[in-house]
Amino acid sequence: MSGDRFASGDEGHALFTDLYELTMLQAYWKEDRQQRAVFSLYFRHLPPARNYALACGLDAALSYLEHLRFTEPEIAQLRSLGFFSEEFLEWLRSFRFTGDVYALAEGTPVFPNEPLLEVVAPLPEAQVAESFAMNQIHLQTVLATKASRVALAAQGRTVVDFGMRRMHGTDAALRGVRAFYVGGVHATSNVLGGLMHDIPVAGTMAHSYIQAHESEAEAFRRFSSLYPQTILLVDTYETIEGVRKVVDLARELGDAFQVRGIRLDSGDLAQLAREARKVLDEAGLERLQIFASGDLDEYRIDEIVRSEAPIGAFGVGTRMGVSRDEPSLDLAYKLTEYAGTGRLKTSPGKASLPGRKQVFRIEENGRSVRDLIGRHDEPQPGRPLLEPVMRDGERLPAGRRTLREARERAAEELAKLPSHVRALEPARPAYTVEVSEALQRDAEAVREKVAR
Amino acid sequence: MSGDRFASGDEGHALFTDLYELTMLQAYWKEDRQQRAVFSLYFRHLPPARNYALACGLDAALSYLEHLRFTEPEIAQLRSLGFFSEEFLEWLRSFRFTGDVYALAEGTPVFPNEPLLEVVAPLPEAQVAESFAMNQIHLQTVLATKASRVALAAQGRTVVDFGMRRMHGTDAALRGVRAFYVGGVHATSNVLGGLMHDIPVAGTMAHSYIQAHESEAEAFRRFSSLYPQTILLVDTYETIEGVRKVVDLARELGDAFQVRGIRLDSGDLAQLAREARKVLDEAGLERLQIFASGDLDEYRIDEIVRSEAPIGAFGVGTRMGVSRDEPSLDLAYKLTEYAGTGRLKTSPGKASLPGRKQVFRIEENGRSVRDLIGRHDEPQPGRPLLEPVMRDGERLPAGRRTLREARERAAEELAKLPSHVRALEPARPAYTVEVSEALQRDAEAVREKVAR
Repeated sequence: MSGDRFASGDEGHALFTDLYELTMLQAYWKEDRQQRAVFSLYFRHLPPARNYALACGLDAALSYLEHLRFTEPEIAQLRSLGFFSEEFLEWLRSFRFTGDVYALAEGTPVFPNEPLLEVVAPLPEAQVAESFAMNQIHLQTVLATKASRVALAAQGRTVVDFGMRRMHGTDAALRGVRAFYVGGVHATSNVLGGLMHDIPVAGTMAHSYIQAHESEAEAFRRFSSLYPQTILLVDTYETIEGVRKVVDLARELGDAFQVRGIRLDSGDLAQLAREARKVLDEAGLERLQIFASGDLDEYRIDEIVRSEAPIGAFGVGTRMGVSRDEPSLDLAYKLTEYAGTGRLKTSPGKASLPGRKQVFRIEENGRSVRDLIGRHDEPQPGRPLLEPVMRDGERLPAGRRTLREARERAAEELAKLPSHVRALEPARPAYTVEVSEALQRDAEAVREKVAR
Repeated sequence: MSGDRFASGDEGHALFTDLYELTMLQAYWKEDRQQRAVFSLYFRHLPPARNYALACGLDAALSYLEHLRFTEPEIAQLRSLGFFSEEFLEWLRSFRFTGDVYALAEGTPVFPNEPLLEVVAPLPEAQVAESFAMNQIHLQTVLATKASRVALAAQGRTVVDFGMRRMHGTDAALRGVRAFYVGGVHATSNVLGGLMHDIPVAGTMAHSYIQAHESEAEAFRRFSSLYPQTILLVDTYETIEGVRKVVDLARELGDAFQVRGIRLDSGDLAQLAREARKVLDEAGLERLQIFASGDLDEYRIDEIVRSEAPIGAFGVGTRMGVSRDEPSLDLAYKLTEYAGTGRLKTSPGKASLPGRKQVFRIEENGRSVRDLIGRHDEPQPGRPLLEPVMRDGERLPAGRRTLREARERAAEELAKLPSHVRALEPARPAYTVEVSEALQRDAEAVREKVAR
């Protein structure tokens, strides 16, 4: 089976979906329930350790909708499941997504109950978008959010993604490169990820390289003769001894010594950095940078930066790569309108807002102070954030923004947030999100109708 | 760019790697450092909420090694990075993995410091296996471990994987289906994942289906006419009212009513199940099963099962899908021997065991009581767990075990563990893992040599 539309950015694997999307699709087809539906993608709560989420993953969702087809081999596979009639499978052959999509631009900070995406399409088309769009927007939003916290904690110091080996599979690692870049990370160790997204690829050396040589000094000499501007890993045996071997090599090579820095990967990074800095400076190697890695995340980086440890760059792996403290978000994709009528779930704790909506971000003196969720068609003060990104199944210019634009937007929008919302600690009070009176009235009216 | 060797199980994307693997590769090539190396893949600690890990992902790692090639387009991409000489790129054209691999069978419970995998190959080949093998074995081991806890908590009740929408990308969702199956899950909602791995695909209906109809009763009637043996979702509005509508439908249809069950997806699942059971039983619908979903994991399932709530099956999503409480494991791939000499890192807290090893599982009265890590060539009591799975780059029979075998092994081996190790609560004492005297002496000798 070919999965060639997966990692490539040319999405469209129609079978990457929950079974119920397809059984419901057959039911909608059978019942001729093809009127216009609106679905909203949003989360109800932020996890305790997040003050905002950074919207990301729209590009993959739109690519999926553009390319969504049921191919003959896929139809044959569906037939084998035994749930579907021949007439329905025949209908699937010409199935296309022909709807409209409204979305927040990638890199926009987003808060509870605000739609990241609204899909407006005939019910079956809007329904079937669910599984893949959620999978990608959830993943990339979780990772971009985490990365933005790491980059903010690093306060301008370089952050390199080292996560691929313990991220959740190849797709997470490849998409993660782009989500991390949106969040403010500077480079990645992931060769394919960097090449796919045109992001700088970086790396140093592993302990195994040092260990495979008869001595650490010999390993340093060999590696820097091939890669003169490399960064040498000094903690394989005894860290400060390792630093002294770098100094010895500098003396040995004289002007030919061009090594850019050293890497610490274990122990008390701040303390070792201070000791290493002293050893390097005393040898006249002030220009060498200290690069730190090893179980880092935004909290540890914040601590290191606040301690004024002389560390210029961070390699951040698993804790960012799986968003270890908050690996998921309660993102949901809910029907909010069908055939011109608002629709709501009334399950306890799972109430939603009906119809098509707009999110307005209200600024005062260049700062974002609060958001307002309104009906899509009501005038409100503030900047409307949801924009049309797809019409009749075709991407609009706003659906083609580049990765660079997303990164720039994230940096700008994060800088505008109240500083306590941008901080690592839980924001008290949380960023304000209001619901317009008109939308509240709509919700009340739908609730009354449903209760009847 | 094609990613067609990713999701397909036909692994071999040579550029899915950390940059340093390739820069080290060039250095090894340049230095002609091609002697035999041994790398061990293991974790140093179990997370607090895990008493064992369930080895999984070997099949993907072996497939990768079998298919590892640097294709012409990949070589052109590497050239564009500017790190590699033409002579080296030429050498890469014929690069193949020609080594041996020893591994634990998938589905084997594994404990700290025990190798899941040992790779024995010329240094560059063994080195370059790192990033992909870790990515896959880490992912699948984390997910299989989590799934086994969920399945154990369910005590034989059906567990269906509902995780794909919030799992970390497409690869995690597709591989997850197989890892969950190894761990004891019965079916998946993931159509492509189920088809790829020949695992039952299951699903019910979404709230949107109910909402898109003028009434819940109408939605139930329509869906069950198309899928007579379906499970009806009853909590879109008011749960017990929803159950009453199922009863009404049963009365209306008489013998034609074949619905298999109802699904609860919100609220106090145990309490609602009891109330729903009462309503169903009073209507003579004893045969309808109650299916529960919504933020479930092993802890909540354990609570529900212990409360004797009348729930027969669980749909488990995000919390299992991202292994929310423990989304990563400190898995590491370390050089332990080169050119016939044991190698060790001595960084604080990161000590390792040199050379090739064997893990012996010692049983008493049919129970696994402790493990012993020894040299690969020393006789010890107990069952040796590491077996040759690849020789000279070709899979051996033990490298071709089926998914069903892995699932059966997991069930058998888990049943043999001491009950406090199989329990959800942290095991005190932890399962015993000893290191043989011969291996301890080897480690000491290498440590002394390194320290000189």
